[in-house]
Amino acid sequence: MAAKACSVLNPGATRGLGLEMVKQMVESPWPVRQLLACCRDLDGLRAEGLRDLAKKHPNVITVVRLGEYSLCSILLQMGSLVGKAGLNVLVNNTWVLTHGTMQTTSTQEIQAAFNTNILGPMDITKRTFKMYLFFLMSATKSGKPGMFCSKPAVVSISSMVASMATVKEMCSFFPMASAGLNMLTLCATEEFRKDEILFAVLHPSDWKGGEGGAIDAPESVEGLLSVMDSLTEKQTGVFLDYEGKVMPW
Amino acid sequence: MAAKACSVLNPGATRGLGLEMVKQMVESPWPVRQLLACCRDLDGLRAEGLRDLAKKHPNVITVVRLGEYSLCSILLQMGSLVGKAGLNVLVNNTWVLTHGTMQTTSTQEIQAAFNTNILGPMDITKRTFKMYLFFLMSATKSGKPGMFCSKPAVVSISSMVASMATVKEMCSFFPMASAGLNMLTLCATEEFRKDEILFAVLHPSDWKGGEGGAIDAPESVEGLLSVMDSLTEKQTGVFLDYEGKVMPW
Ligand SMILES: NC(=O)c1ccc[n+]([C@@H]2O[C@H](COP(=O)([O-])OP(=O)(O)OC[C@H]3O[C@@H](n4cnc5c(N)ncnc54)[C@H](OP(=O)(O)O)[C@@H]3O)[C@@H](O)[C@H]2O)c1
Ligand SMILES: NC(=O)c1ccc[n+]([C@@H]2O[C@H](COP(=O)([O-])OP(=O)(O)OC[C@H]3O[C@@H](n4cnc5c(N)ncnc54)[C@H](OP(=O)(O)O)[C@@H]3O)[C@@H](O)[C@H]2O)c1
Repeated sequence: MAAKACSVLNPGATRGLGLEMVKQMVESPWPVRQLLACCRDLDGLRAEGLRDLAKKHPNVITVVRLGEYSLCSILLQMGSLVGKAGLNVLVNNTWVLTHGTMQTTSTQEIQAAFNTNILGPMDITKRTFKMYLFFLMSATKSGKPGMFCSKPAVVSISSMVASMATVKEMCSFFPMASAGLNMLTLCATEEFRKDEILFAVLHPSDWKGGEGGAIDAPESVEGLLSVMDSLTEKQTGVFLDYEGKVMPW
Repeated sequence: MAAKACSVLNPGATRGLGLEMVKQMVESPWPVRQLLACCRDLDGLRAEGLRDLAKKHPNVITVVRLGEYSLCSILLQMGSLVGKAGLNVLVNNTWVLTHGTMQTTSTQEIQAAFNTNILGPMDITKRTFKMYLFFLMSATKSGKPGMFCSKPAVVSISSMVASMATVKEMCSFFPMASAGLNMLTLCATEEFRKDEILFAVLHPSDWKGGEGGAIDAPESVEGLLSVMDSLTEKQTGVFLDYEGKVMPW
């Protein structure tokens, strides 16, 4: 987040792109000021990378155990961390991928995907902004006019599998839950337009954490962060890939 | 369903467009041969219209109480009704509308909408075709080559609120669950293409049952049935309104 003092809430920072994003955000020449990283199993093997990063950057990264604290108390913690300066960016990047077609995906699996990919982001977006609009916003809303990621912004990491235009190639990922995240973002864009909150959906490319990935996580996240840096009110509600290319809904 | 002996499964026939569709299908000059109409509260006031219709057309309409029978036994009942001639058309028209924005819609409400608008149709489509492909299909698959509503077809009644292109005007209906039904249909179109099963999503217009409706239910259903009659394999996977106009996803 070049040259912008920024505070970030990352609800899925344990591994994958979420973890890489935390790393690049705090280790860039212009690190973010405060980063609240959420994690479900902080003592687990998987969280080793996040634990190490947090140890290295104790003044920037605060790790919160999801499940132990309610969302409300996580947001309060965020509030006290960022103080009067306010929160800028919420990154929605928790997801589960449904592998399989409609016929092989069970109702339980799709319900779990709805919960993680849509209801989770919906809840956190709503609650963040409910508190945000009242307590935290004024500070980050000031500065130069317009919408930017240095002011209130929600970036949802979605996927090209969620596109209605590519179902023909992507239907083996049964992309219903991801499509919901896109629709959620479009709705939120309109609802929060008057509050000058920027929304965007980004596709990180198939990074190597996925199957048959095209690029690796550092390259994907570098791209995502530079796209985030470039966003203005003209792009609110867009769907872009990690190189800034417009994706079809 | 002009001039085509046709068997239909309608999972939401109690009222609204579902009931009007039952009426027009059995009272047209070329009535459908067999219609299985599902209803949650068959003894309730709301179901009076359906009860009367079923009494008038006992050889065509069979009413099934949803909840009392499992989906599996409903499909078995359908199988024995249609016999060797097979089932043609499944109409997915059960829905609940979420009135409100993301901020005013609760997690419980959106979960209920997911269940009715996506998981219900997903379950019934999957199971119908699982049984269908093995027991019921051969008969309706014969006849002239290609896809038609006189051969295996699934028509999902969705809504223009579900379109990613109209969120700006429609976000006050928080259209996430309806968008899911569209995505479901697109996935199913691909999955069942090799089995020559036709899929379509139709928008009935805002009929007067809705708020500020533009047309009434008979006019909407007349349009929907004539569009259904016109569908071929060229249209599988399309999104059309009741006049046959292509809708944006
Ligand atoms: N991988 C790809 O190639 C690819 C391609 C296209 C798009 N994407 C997008 O990129 C984003 C990140 O993907 P990724 O590959 O980094 O995913 P990942 O490696 O599977 O990581 C998913 C993250 O979400 C968390 N999470 C999952 N379910 C959760 C729940 N119910 N509650 C809280 N946290 C939960 C996980 O935490 P735990 O460790 O606790 O499970 C983890 O931190 C996703 O939005 C995805 O749509 C990825
Ligand atoms: N109304 C409009 O102006 C409008 C506009 C655009 C699109 N549409 C579309 O048209 C279709 C029909 O709409 P409508 O106005 O006729 O709806 P409606 O009058 O509200 O009827 C909905 C039907 O779905 C059934 N249903 C609801 N939840 C169910 C569940 N969980 N399990 C089983 N059945 C359930 C209802 O049965 P019960 O009687 O038991 O509740 C009823 O038969 C919908 O797909 C909708 O997307 C309508």
